[in-house]
Amino acid sequence: MRWNKISDAVIRRLPLYLRVLDELANEGDTALISSQELGIKAGVGPALVRKDLAWFGEFGKQGVGYDVGFLRNELRKILNLEQEMAVALAGVGSLGRALARYHLKRYADTDSFNLRLAALFDSDPAKVGSEVEGIPIRSLEEIPEVVAREQIKIVILAVPADAAQDVANRFVRAGVNCILNYAPVKLQVPETVQVAPVDLSLELQRLAYYVPKQTR
Amino acid sequence: MRWNKISDAVIRRLPLYLRVLDELANEGDTALISSQELGIKAGVGPALVRKDLAWFGEFGKQGVGYDVGFLRNELRKILNLEQEMAVALAGVGSLGRALARYHLKRYADTDSFNLRLAALFDSDPAKVGSEVEGIPIRSLEEIPEVVAREQIKIVILAVPADAAQDVANRFVRAGVNCILNYAPVKLQVPETVQVAPVDLSLELQRLAYYVPKQTR
Repeated sequence: MRWNKISDAVIRRLPLYLRVLDELANEGDTALISSQELGIKAGVGPALVRKDLAWFGEFGKQGVGYDVGFLRNELRKILNLEQEMAVALAGVGSLGRALARYHLKRYADTDSFNLRLAALFDSDPAKVGSEVEGIPIRSLEEIPEVVAREQIKIVILAVPADAAQDVANRFVRAGVNCILNYAPVKLQVPETVQVAPVDLSLELQRLAYYVPKQTR
Repeated sequence: MRWNKISDAVIRRLPLYLRVLDELANEGDTALISSQELGIKAGVGPALVRKDLAWFGEFGKQGVGYDVGFLRNELRKILNLEQEMAVALAGVGSLGRALARYHLKRYADTDSFNLRLAALFDSDPAKVGSEVEGIPIRSLEEIPEVVAREQIKIVILAVPADAAQDVANRFVRAGVNCILNYAPVKLQVPETVQVAPVDLSLELQRLAYYVPKQTR
């Protein structure tokens, strides 16, 4: 299922560390950072910071800390963010449209992002041909051609639940191996495909667990 | 930081199990389910299913499985979803508006949801007083009054990054202890407050890690 043995929980924290290092670098602070400080800024315990980074090599020195610029470059390499990577978004409804705007804004704000929203797709012929933030909306039939031409590596699925599997299949057949899935449905994909489900209602149900008993 | 020692990774998986049980119950299938089957349907390994549920009690019988109806009720209790819980959304921009619609639709679709979007807030006087899906948009000044009246327990923050801390503070002062944070900023909150950050760009950066090397 995974390309290696490193837990996804570790991978999930790497972008948090990278964001802290980006901020430090933006502020011109390229000196050393301790695992303690990196942990506090990223909201992760310092022991876990050291453990996470140790999976990928020896990036710091005991009692000295990590070199901000060096660690930042290493994390960008590990996360494949050294070169620009093209992303497609399928399903330009109200959620898809908001996601497109949100992502485009975030890309512009973040140095290390290097993910480029390169194509939009929708099944509605009335939408195909119009634009969102300058990016044209294309039909599902154009997926193979556009994926190949734009070198799309990741697709964001913001289509309705009953369309998600079909649209996912189209991208997988076109060679896309990474899916960020906003549709509230579990996708069936080959083992070589990585799906990150983002179900907003699951997040809320999880939060409900933490509502203090005494206040209910 | 937490109300108990059970890892958030465990809590995150409970809504996945609950969704599977909801679907089975909707299909009229209220018999037994094995941890194997529950795991496959939820996308979690069977050993992990057993381990997760064991934190909360003995819900199944070795070699027999779990009673769908019973386990469903127990999970609803654990997740505090037995009674309706009121949720507010702050920031009715394009993302907030899409989230409001998305959440409202999901609530209607899901039996066990029991989370009700009860109030919308925005700082823009031009928006205050208008409605989204029948829910009026209120000013930030109305937070204390509306939180108390509607018994709001969770807030979804979809405000810009530079407004997020102020809006979070307002809800925390009004007694809200659970925040689902879409703003790309780390919130400073008291220890009694639980923040679930949902940073869509972090998810994408994590996915980039899984883009197969040979295709780049």
